[in-house]
Amino acid sequence: MKPSERLYQKAETIWHASFEHPFVQEIGQGTLDERKFRYFMVQDYLYLLDYAKLFAFGVTKADDEATMRQFANLLDGTMNTEMDLHRQYAAKFGITTDELAEAEQAPTTTAYTRYMLHASHNGGLGELMASLVPCAWGYHEIGKRLVEKYPDAVNHPLYGEWVKMYAGEEFAELADWAVNLMDRVMTGKPEADMKRYEEIFLTTSQYELMFWEAAYHQEDWPRFS
Amino acid sequence: MKPSERLYQKAETIWHASFEHPFVQEIGQGTLDERKFRYFMVQDYLYLLDYAKLFAFGVTKADDEATMRQFANLLDGTMNTEMDLHRQYAAKFGITTDELAEAEQAPTTTAYTRYMLHASHNGGLGELMASLVPCAWGYHEIGKRLVEKYPDAVNHPLYGEWVKMYAGEEFAELADWAVNLMDRVMTGKPEADMKRYEEIFLTTSQYELMFWEAAYHQEDWPRFS
Amino acid sequence: MKPSERLYQKAETIWHASFEHPFVQEIGQGTLDERKFRYFMVQDYLYLLDYAKLFAFGVTKADDEATMRQFANLLDGTMNTEMDLHRQYAAKFGITTDELAEAEQAPTTTAYTRYMLHASHNGGLGELMASLVPCAWGYHEIGKRLVEKYPDAVNHPLYGEWVKMYAGEEFAELADWAVNLMDRVMTGKPEADMKRYEEIFLTTSQYELMFWEAAYHQEDWPRFS
Amino acid sequence: MKPSERLYQKAETIWHASFEHPFVQEIGQGTLDERKFRYFMVQDYLYLLDYAKLFAFGVTKADDEATMRQFANLLDGTMNTEMDLHRQYAAKFGITTDELAEAEQAPTTTAYTRYMLHASHNGGLGELMASLVPCAWGYHEIGKRLVEKYPDAVNHPLYGEWVKMYAGEEFAELADWAVNLMDRVMTGKPEADMKRYEEIFLTTSQYELMFWEAAYHQEDWPRFS
Repeated sequence: MKPSERLYQKAETIWHASFEHPFVQEIGQGTLDERKFRYFMVQDYLYLLDYAKLFAFGVTKADDEATMRQFANLLDGTMNTEMDLHRQYAAKFGITTDELAEAEQAPTTTAYTRYMLHASHNGGLGELMASLVPCAWGYHEIGKRLVEKYPDAVNHPLYGEWVKMYAGEEFAELADWAVNLMDRVMTGKPEADMKRYEEIFLTTSQYELMFWEAAYHQEDWPRFS
Repeated sequence: MKPSERLYQKAETIWHASFEHPFVQEIGQGTLDERKFRYFMVQDYLYLLDYAKLFAFGVTKADDEATMRQFANLLDGTMNTEMDLHRQYAAKFGITTDELAEAEQAPTTTAYTRYMLHASHNGGLGELMASLVPCAWGYHEIGKRLVEKYPDAVNHPLYGEWVKMYAGEEFAELADWAVNLMDRVMTGKPEADMKRYEEIFLTTSQYELMFWEAAYHQEDWPRFS
Repeated sequence: MKPSERLYQKAETIWHASFEHPFVQEIGQGTLDERKFRYFMVQDYLYLLDYAKLFAFGVTKADDEATMRQFANLLDGTMNTEMDLHRQYAAKFGITTDELAEAEQAPTTTAYTRYMLHASHNGGLGELMASLVPCAWGYHEIGKRLVEKYPDAVNHPLYGEWVKMYAGEEFAELADWAVNLMDRVMTGKPEADMKRYEEIFLTTSQYELMFWEAAYHQEDWPRFS
Repeated sequence: MKPSERLYQKAETIWHASFEHPFVQEIGQGTLDERKFRYFMVQDYLYLLDYAKLFAFGVTKADDEATMRQFANLLDGTMNTEMDLHRQYAAKFGITTDELAEAEQAPTTTAYTRYMLHASHNGGLGELMASLVPCAWGYHEIGKRLVEKYPDAVNHPLYGEWVKMYAGEEFAELADWAVNLMDRVMTGKPEADMKRYEEIFLTTSQYELMFWEAAYHQEDWPRFS
């Protein structure tokens, strides 16, 4: 069994819950409250800025030039192309570039990004891939399943573009690349390593789910005073 | 104004809310539900294991031998003495060493520790001290205020030892050392650095508050399935 | 005085010695032994692979999105364009891609790269810029001075391309960008920080000089047995 | 075959050359020029300050509390006991505490320490142990072999204490602990990991040898000007 298959099996229940989460289902049905999606877009933008740093650690931790090159390419693509697309898409929802620049991470965004960053920085390429893959692979899975279950979802004036992007060929390639690299990195590792990767993979999968939940409820930092 | 004074002023509302939090007040009054304290002890134990790693980063980031030595001493004291005391104290509540060894961090514990670890690992000594101080200084503040407001608190059969420890001389010295080192490290830094330290200091102060809240409600990972 | 001016003044003697080094002078005169340049190209290629990692650390340590983007762009440009140019140029000297892929860092290459990587990884953006700038700025200086002193150097069949590249507009922009970012990062820093930056800047300047020396003598690991 | 046996076999020629190095042999014979030993002591002191940081990274990278505790204990022992012993021993040679505090690392000391620090910081526990072991194990080997070949070496007024320390029981325990932990960490790792560990182990073994050479010739930074 490939490492990715083992990890997928372990995380299946959580991934299923992500797909079934009202935030995701209501995107498919086209009924999601626009304010919730707006909140999501801002947090997703902030998330991506930290996610990109995983690619940077990938460059410092890769053993071979080809992998370094791929991480460098992804990092540049994310910072200098993806972020622009996010800004353009956000503009459709009336979110200005200034609003994005001044926005603050919500608690789940901070918890998720710091978890990934610490695991990747302190560990090796295996820990990094276990942190990175649930987002890349999971979004593609969600995109594909949405298109299957709600064929009209791609035509929705607000959310259609989002569904198409994650279900589409280009994102599929990114997800495949990430899964293949993860398999290559983890194959042959002793069980103690696999257990650690599993823990990271499950935790980041859980954070994916919590991210939908946070967006659905427009989570904010607790104010006790 | 010393950096520590500036940071204290900024965080004062949050620190006040921490002291006023029912978890802390009920320790002072001796009425806290034992199960809540039990939960706290386990999470605090797990927290301390990660907190100790800040001292390790202190050793790698210190510029002078004297500071390296102090961090090394604190790290060893924490790992080889403090953790034992925690285990002994936990035993009074029927928490076995095995339970501690197998316990899992709750969401707030994970969010807090990863935040500190990432800020300290990726930054310099200033970021590290801004991460480290709110816990050390804040616990001493809480200890002192509890003793002032509830002079009997130190005699409580379950919580008295805890109050005495954090109000006491030895812990005061640790807090002083940390605050003094923070002042030394931050003095003269440009405003852009101070802003970053402030953000970290406020966030870890906020996590301190959320830690009480998590313990009070015996927080667990969300189960959506 | 700008930080870059202060650092330049301190390093001036070493930089002057670099320009006067026989390896550099003989490039200008077109008399350099081809084998020495061949050795240099291989080591420079290996050096660049590690130098690129500084840009990756730049992404993780930058405070703002614009700086992250510039580092990401530089990293990708280095890994996915510069390295190709290096391979093509090396091919003119009969150095195959396989030879580059299998080559091993010489002692000075290892010493220099590990020094930069450690200073940048363990420190903040200031330490990183102090590590990064002497190579970027220094090569441009050498290029400019060579063109001035030996106007014919750009027409040399073997070395002309090299001289043109480092004296040229595109490389000037990179050097300017690096120096400006260094000034921005270091301005207002307390003297203790500046001293640390100075030490790093002088040490990497010294390694630049030692790199010419290593190439001139085709340095290899000592064999004591 | 245990990982440590494999690594030892690979490094055997280099380790043999270390033992046969005039610096080591002349310690055994009691004929070493005192100025060379003096130089060595200063550089060894500076080396140890960086070597201790490997123990700090051990704390942040260890997976279990017991290993964290051992690294913490070693780190504190090194910083707060060993360094004192080094200072006392140095005093016998007229090296003052001030001289130690102001001394600068020679090129080989810098090259060796940065190599270890980068490999350990950027890698996992395997890379860290491959960096750390050649010094700990190698010094014990040298101590033992010296005592065997030159039974009188332990009585030498200047060098006897040094020989006794590294040949002795206490240092043997440290070396054993390090080798055992290395074996535990590396056992079951895939060949790609072992190859990386091997490269680190051989390079740090080589640096050990170069350290004797540097001391024997009282190496200094090149002055080209």
